[in-house]
Amino acid sequence: MASGGEPSRATLQDVAARAGVSAKTVSNVVNGHPHVRPETRERVLQAMGELHYRVNLSARHLARGRTGIVALAVPWLSNPYFAELAHHVIRAARREAERGESVTVLIDETHSDLERERQLVAGVGPQLLDGVIISPQGLTRADLEALTPMGPLVLLGERIFDGPVDHVAADNVAAARELTAHLLERGRRRIALVGFGDQRAGTAQLRRDGIRQAVEAAGLTLDATLQLPVEGLEREHGMRAARRLMERPDPPDAVVCFNDVVAVGMLKALSLDGVGVGPGAAVAVTGFDNIPESGYTVPALTTVDWRTEELAETALEVLLDRIQSRRTLRPREITTPHRLVVRDSS
Amino acid sequence: MASGGEPSRATLQDVAARAGVSAKTVSNVVNGHPHVRPETRERVLQAMGELHYRVNLSARHLARGRTGIVALAVPWLSNPYFAELAHHVIRAARREAERGESVTVLIDETHSDLERERQLVAGVGPQLLDGVIISPQGLTRADLEALTPMGPLVLLGERIFDGPVDHVAADNVAAARELTAHLLERGRRRIALVGFGDQRAGTAQLRRDGIRQAVEAAGLTLDATLQLPVEGLEREHGMRAARRLMERPDPPDAVVCFNDVVAVGMLKALSLDGVGVGPGAAVAVTGFDNIPESGYTVPALTTVDWRTEELAETALEVLLDRIQSRRTLRPREITTPHRLVVRDSS
Repeated sequence: MASGGEPSRATLQDVAARAGVSAKTVSNVVNGHPHVRPETRERVLQAMGELHYRVNLSARHLARGRTGIVALAVPWLSNPYFAELAHHVIRAARREAERGESVTVLIDETHSDLERERQLVAGVGPQLLDGVIISPQGLTRADLEALTPMGPLVLLGERIFDGPVDHVAADNVAAARELTAHLLERGRRRIALVGFGDQRAGTAQLRRDGIRQAVEAAGLTLDATLQLPVEGLEREHGMRAARRLMERPDPPDAVVCFNDVVAVGMLKALSLDGVGVGPGAAVAVTGFDNIPESGYTVPALTTVDWRTEELAETALEVLLDRIQSRRTLRPREITTPHRLVVRDSS
Repeated sequence: MASGGEPSRATLQDVAARAGVSAKTVSNVVNGHPHVRPETRERVLQAMGELHYRVNLSARHLARGRTGIVALAVPWLSNPYFAELAHHVIRAARREAERGESVTVLIDETHSDLERERQLVAGVGPQLLDGVIISPQGLTRADLEALTPMGPLVLLGERIFDGPVDHVAADNVAAARELTAHLLERGRRRIALVGFGDQRAGTAQLRRDGIRQAVEAAGLTLDATLQLPVEGLEREHGMRAARRLMERPDPPDAVVCFNDVVAVGMLKALSLDGVGVGPGAAVAVTGFDNIPESGYTVPALTTVDWRTEELAETALEVLLDRIQSRRTLRPREITTPHRLVVRDSS
């Protein structure tokens, strides 16, 4: 880069000779094998630098049939749930590498943009990515049917069920039902829903179904006027929703927020307005996702934990199986476990 | 993948013919150009799927001299500061793409692992990545000097100054000095430091220097017994540190936490123990980073905002300039602005 003139054409053998190691060792360094001694790796990298050696990815992938790179695409890294998910998928890949199967996960953020999701899915294939794990927001089953032959793909989340590719998701209906049953057991009767707008069809619909099932099983009905759409799913939207709910002549005695981020804003507004939250207090508040900050709000937030680490491991395992298998496997629908986390806010 | 037999060798022209568009249009879709109509893109992708067409990345990059892919490597995506940074770098790249220069940012998480950082830096080059933005934790200047010829690299953070590559960082000394001056102005005198352990040499050292400068400018000295190392920088570590500080016979009247994540745990513990936080109360608490949750803690947290969006844009701009420039540019040291955010916790 820095030096001018013709690019060098150093070979693997040139690097090996300069570093005083075997060509196999250079290859191990290039392929990121974990069992190379740091001093050796250092020497090889130094020789590569001095000779301006370029890894020939095409040659590598021709030999192995793969690039060793997969992508995880999430809508927003600024949502702590997706940041945690990314973290756990990368950790799972690191553990795979320790077992000898080197795999690198790169993260992409789609901003819920359909075109971006399509580009990513279309980019799967032996030239760059061995496979993609995607939490789609815009992509439809029809898109996938047009794009599937491109390469291994694992879908996360609730937007597409029974599509032409592997799908990993938790049971949102059951989780929402259990959360609501907990509120009803604690004597809550007027349950408000915040953030379950129609725009987030899949997930919101399933959670609403679960809430309704629990309410109806208790012989009650959901009050439609207590279902508040919000303009977004950030903390500020939860804050504004709290004010709209609490200035009603008949405020709710429980608020189920679509996710923890919204619930954090709700708790903040209730705290500023001096409204008591928790058992025996004016209102109970719950979320979904169990993001790290939910244990540290005042009061700590009751929520649903999606066992993100297990979900991440499962998704990666399914993808690697699909990449490595020589058989044509049928699309799989895999449901991961969840658990209710009861804290001081309910 | 799913179908057996010989892999197809469909050409760009085959795809164009099947989709009923020009080869140029197929090329635009492949290269992710923004000005392709969605229906056209759809038709091209469909034809590519039907023909099992594979994008030939090597041909693309030979033509353009680049792959159009850069990586951002952060130590932990589970730290909201780095998740926000990743989000803003990806957004900045999206804006570049709208201006016609298509660039895709993929995110990597290094877990502060030196070997991982070295591999990533060694992987820069025309075969896969056009460049890397990295917030190093283990990498030294010596590593970089051995690896630099590999390709364009931008360093973030405080670990390496005056290295052989471009460096973008905020002024941590000034920020810490301003934060501490604010505490002193509010009458705080016994200032505790939490999480400024020696293990995080660069950043912690600079912030400690700034704090000391402000304290000494006020004619005071820092109490060494009020400098608490912690085992990690998560919320739980802030929580434990709060208890150790508050059970002292002479507790501090202000706590400067190394980052907001630690401060969030500190605030939670003080709330549970009924210790008042804020102006006129027993103790003031501050952090660094202005992560999204810091405006929503009870009380809201005083902190330093690194203007992450601007920092992200600057880092990407510097990297793209380095990738695209035909000249040999000298390494640049760029300082980005910051601002003190005073909230209810001080």
